[in-house]
Amino acid sequence: MNVLIVYAHPEPQSLNGSLLKFAVKRLENAGHNAQVSDLYAMRWKATLDADDSTLDRPADQRFDPALDSKRAFEQGLQRPDIAREQDKLRWADMVILQFPLWWFSMPAILKGWVERVYAYGFAYGVGEHSDARWGDRYGEGAMAGKRAMLIVTTGGWESHYSARGINGPIDDVLFPIQHGVLYYPGFDVLPPVVIYRTSRIDAEHYTTLCDTLGQRLDNLGNTAPIAFRPQNAGDYLIPELTLRPDITPALSGFGAHRK
Amino acid sequence: MNVLIVYAHPEPQSLNGSLLKFAVKRLENAGHNAQVSDLYAMRWKATLDADDSTLDRPADQRFDPALDSKRAFEQGLQRPDIAREQDKLRWADMVILQFPLWWFSMPAILKGWVERVYAYGFAYGVGEHSDARWGDRYGEGAMAGKRAMLIVTTGGWESHYSARGINGPIDDVLFPIQHGVLYYPGFDVLPPVVIYRTSRIDAEHYTTLCDTLGQRLDNLGNTAPIAFRPQNAGDYLIPELTLRPDITPALSGFGAHRK
Repeated sequence: MNVLIVYAHPEPQSLNGSLLKFAVKRLENAGHNAQVSDLYAMRWKATLDADDSTLDRPADQRFDPALDSKRAFEQGLQRPDIAREQDKLRWADMVILQFPLWWFSMPAILKGWVERVYAYGFAYGVGEHSDARWGDRYGEGAMAGKRAMLIVTTGGWESHYSARGINGPIDDVLFPIQHGVLYYPGFDVLPPVVIYRTSRIDAEHYTTLCDTLGQRLDNLGNTAPIAFRPQNAGDYLIPELTLRPDITPALSGFGAHRK
Repeated sequence: MNVLIVYAHPEPQSLNGSLLKFAVKRLENAGHNAQVSDLYAMRWKATLDADDSTLDRPADQRFDPALDSKRAFEQGLQRPDIAREQDKLRWADMVILQFPLWWFSMPAILKGWVERVYAYGFAYGVGEHSDARWGDRYGEGAMAGKRAMLIVTTGGWESHYSARGINGPIDDVLFPIQHGVLYYPGFDVLPPVVIYRTSRIDAEHYTTLCDTLGQRLDNLGNTAPIAFRPQNAGDYLIPELTLRPDITPALSGFGAHRK
């Protein structure tokens, strides 16, 4: 498989840095092609703005983040750094986002990767949009047939992210990313690798972590993805995009969107 | 009141830009002091990195995002842009974060504001940390006594963000921000102002929106905050930080952390 790791940590000599090196080696030893977008090393431009294209916009025309993205993507006028990342996504069979959980989400530099690389017409605004069909998304789209997975580290304890933990359940904390960023453009999303309490990892614990991560990497092709519900397979009313009344009527919230 | 609006939209001639101007005028007409951190106009540095302080780090010492932040904050060696925003937070009685919802979270530039301004010792790592007490956070901390509120715009429909909507309930989508970014350092968080379906707002609808927003702004001081559960008032086991078994035993997930 072609595996793209999009990696967001500022310090190579960190736990994340060590895990990245371990992962690349493990993947290559198993015969995969691994490519890394090391966003800090690339000095990735995090902020989406009007400089993201060379569109010839009249001085009196306002910058529209979505429509400018659409036109720049269609006309081949995106900044080269954006187009390069889109090419990597086309190349990849498997995409891994690796990052430390900062304030219950991905670091800004990675969020900016999503915002800028996920162009209108590439990762959203794909397919028929009408009152009968709401685009190719949530299980369909440009990334359909590809797989994705998160590798996330956090200082908090596993119990803090448990069903009744104060930070909220990790599945729910990650839902806007796993469902909203990865499943949305069509990825099949594998269960995440989450590493807790990062300040207390000794050599022995690190070995165990690598064993666990290694096994997950060995099984990227045959791990069952999270069973999110596809938008266009009958479970949702369109255009309301609410679950049909007969689908798990007692459930609401993020969990209702998993089968 | 002193009101700080942290604002993240790249185009002044946008719906967000118009709402910002409306809000500032409304607040000033009511006698409040309003200050805006217009992150795009300020060309805010979104990426947290080793350049965020002038700490004298030996060449062989690795950059630790949390510990470097702590030392830089204690020693007054933070970059001036960070210190200025912290001063604005100290000045404010009320903080409003205004942004378009991009990929189910805040824009990268605003996420980077949180990551960089929320220094260790300022917004986290405050108070006693032991197995008996887990710091001053979630209802306590440096922002205790201040209020906060989100103003969020989104292209999606309200039904898409309803209890059984495909994007997840808006309260849950915003939980990592309202609970994780605002309540964590001590803010009382008012219910958000959410504006849906932004591409279909005509003049009449805009007038209605301004009426609604205006009323919310007129009542910042007397609107009841979201009843999140404080960490250190007995509802949670420490250090597990899970809800005590006798607190709403049937509930789990984000909703369990509201009274």
